[in-house]
Amino acid sequence: MVTIKDVAQDAGVAVGTVSKVINGQHVSEKNRKKVEDSIRKLGYQINYYAKGFKMQKTFTAAVIVPDVRNPFFSEWVYYLEQAFFRHGYKIFLCNTQEDGEKEEYYFKMAVQNKVDGIVCISYQEKETPVSEMVPVISLDRHFEQRISCICSDNYHGGELAAMKMIEGGSRELVYIRSGSMISGETLKRGIGFADYCKKKKIHCRELFLGEEKESIQKRRKLYEKEIRDFVKQHTRKGKPDFDGIYTSTDWLGGIVLSVLSSQGISIPDQVQLVGHDGLLDQASGEYILSTIVQPVKELAEKSVELLLEKMKGTEIEPITMLPVTF
Amino acid sequence: MVTIKDVAQDAGVAVGTVSKVINGQHVSEKNRKKVEDSIRKLGYQINYYAKGFKMQKTFTAAVIVPDVRNPFFSEWVYYLEQAFFRHGYKIFLCNTQEDGEKEEYYFKMAVQNKVDGIVCISYQEKETPVSEMVPVISLDRHFEQRISCICSDNYHGGELAAMKMIEGGSRELVYIRSGSMISGETLKRGIGFADYCKKKKIHCRELFLGEEKESIQKRRKLYEKEIRDFVKQHTRKGKPDFDGIYTSTDWLGGIVLSVLSSQGISIPDQVQLVGHDGLLDQASGEYILSTIVQPVKELAEKSVELLLEKMKGTEIEPITMLPVTF
Repeated sequence: MVTIKDVAQDAGVAVGTVSKVINGQHVSEKNRKKVEDSIRKLGYQINYYAKGFKMQKTFTAAVIVPDVRNPFFSEWVYYLEQAFFRHGYKIFLCNTQEDGEKEEYYFKMAVQNKVDGIVCISYQEKETPVSEMVPVISLDRHFEQRISCICSDNYHGGELAAMKMIEGGSRELVYIRSGSMISGETLKRGIGFADYCKKKKIHCRELFLGEEKESIQKRRKLYEKEIRDFVKQHTRKGKPDFDGIYTSTDWLGGIVLSVLSSQGISIPDQVQLVGHDGLLDQASGEYILSTIVQPVKELAEKSVELLLEKMKGTEIEPITMLPVTF
Repeated sequence: MVTIKDVAQDAGVAVGTVSKVINGQHVSEKNRKKVEDSIRKLGYQINYYAKGFKMQKTFTAAVIVPDVRNPFFSEWVYYLEQAFFRHGYKIFLCNTQEDGEKEEYYFKMAVQNKVDGIVCISYQEKETPVSEMVPVISLDRHFEQRISCICSDNYHGGELAAMKMIEGGSRELVYIRSGSMISGETLKRGIGFADYCKKKKIHCRELFLGEEKESIQKRRKLYEKEIRDFVKQHTRKGKPDFDGIYTSTDWLGGIVLSVLSSQGISIPDQVQLVGHDGLLDQASGEYILSTIVQPVKELAEKSVELLLEKMKGTEIEPITMLPVTF
């Protein structure tokens, strides 16, 4: 049986340092790495049960997302798991399929299984009552009471998209968004975009594609049709009356891309296109399109950090915002 | 507090039927759906702790994958979670990053947290000792002793790829594969391919890209270079001396696609290209390339079914194979 002393000896640090790493307390990056390497090398097993008993903790967290197949969410889950792992936590993965009932079921399951905290992407209108019982961090959605929100700077993302296209020569802009999948913070993308256009006296329209009630496959078809109709309606003799499109997500951007291509409209010569998220194409490993990049890894790491603080009872800001890049 | 009786009443079935659904026993699909709908509707909470105590079960399973960001694995995890959910199970998600030590750490963690079973994609050479203590199902990798393997029909996948390209007119085939990420079952893709070519007296070469020791980003660059060198070496005046390529994964197929395009070689006119896995492009929702499709959803559902059988102590086949399609 490998003990904490063996780890300390192998890592060449004090027993207290190992203990700090295990308890998620601050030590230097160098020492943390040494200790983590030794823990892995020796196969040291933290006795979570004994430990949990003493500390009233289970070292588990629940990660609630709509659908891990969405590449943005799978990156999000991956980096959360890595960050939790470094702090000795395991995660329950829950896919809600954007179903409010299933989401609430998972919130309750998490509490019943005595998780120490929850990180969620919530589709609910109201804050879950579970947040009274366990610390919760929410991505992109700000609730009024106990849940803390983390997000990237959506407003500035919208501004950046407008700025880049105006610099690139666009004068007739369109913002395309779908019904507020996650209302709240992401709406600010469009507001930042519109505000910047107004400031620069550039004309800007919005195409709103309706609520996201259907399955993702059906939605794609619906949106594709709506976008095609819009493009056709605004194109005369192969010339569109707009020259820049910003979409609220890269996924939507991908649909716009294929519609414009099929209509023989060239990008970026005739129309500049900017998405939002920073998804990478699986085949090429490059961005699908010009995009406002959310710092997914940093968002995940910060979420775990905030959650651990919250578990300790520290008051944290209702909203924590990280910067985006073009 | 919602009870099992409330669920039975709402669903219009007997209490025994609800109990069977909760315990993962067989009931008709119709009744299962009714019960599941009522459980969700009423927010019925199975008392796992009391139940677990009585049954010596925790209703948790561990899902161990290399990296959930890989779209094949994220689909796999998604469908596993759905299937486990239907049986009242929660899952721990573990990303090993193809690191044997981390994988073993997670196996031990799973046992320590008293999971009822594990579904893994293992990169280890040897069977984990953990399999003595808890039922384990492995995707695509067949171990000798206690772990049961599930896979799709890789050999026939290789045959199908060869058949389709030969039917399409190809006479000089190349099989490109990377170092056995998961040795064992996936190697049969190349064997099925070569066997079919031999039977049809079609010439067939193999390009082996070496071991997967680097990070995925580095690997992409290395493989891209190797493939480009191969293509250049085998192309004279814009004419390649091969007219069909089969890759062991769609991910590799994507790299081949971009190399061929950059060399001005047209697909499928000059060279037919077939991948393996059945990945969908995020932007278009269509297959990235012609491909041998693995039935991911069915593989996941079957894995959970087999694991539940194994938990009950039922002997199951060492390998279970599901069909592939083109």
